[in-house]
Amino acid sequence: MLKPEILDPQGQAVQRALPRLGFDGIADVRQGKRFELEVEGPVDDAALARIHEMAETFLANTVIEDFTVKVES
Amino acid sequence: MLKPEILDPQGQAVQRALPRLGFDGIADVRQGKRFELEVEGPVDDAALARIHEMAETFLANTVIEDFTVKVES
Repeated sequence: MLKPEILDPQGQAVQRALPRLGFDGIADVRQGKRFELEVEGPVDDAALARIHEMAETFLANTVIEDFTVKVES
Repeated sequence: MLKPEILDPQGQAVQRALPRLGFDGIADVRQGKRFELEVEGPVDDAALARIHEMAETFLANTVIEDFTVKVES
């Protein structure tokens, strides 16, 4: 997701459109990216550390974006 | 996220680039969108139903995309 201090024109456009479309009560909308990675082998601490590094160096632009890594089965 | 049967060229490009960048052991990569909505008032069943409708009719293209709604505090 874009860092909170970075302007998000896509999210703003969605937020402004919602009342027009009949959806009220949404205070803020932010739009971002999501990657689903399928890991070969066990998702242990070493694999998670590698994925964290991958996200930091390659998948996210950490100048303007934050990221979180979550494990789902 | 794109439905499993829909081709994801962005995800494929990422997956192919990873070994070149020194990251092995990733069997598949899918790229999709993520929206963070800040809700005014309580996130009760009625609010969740509205957000589900919003996602289905406006945020996702359900012809080619699946979506899930998750509550975070």
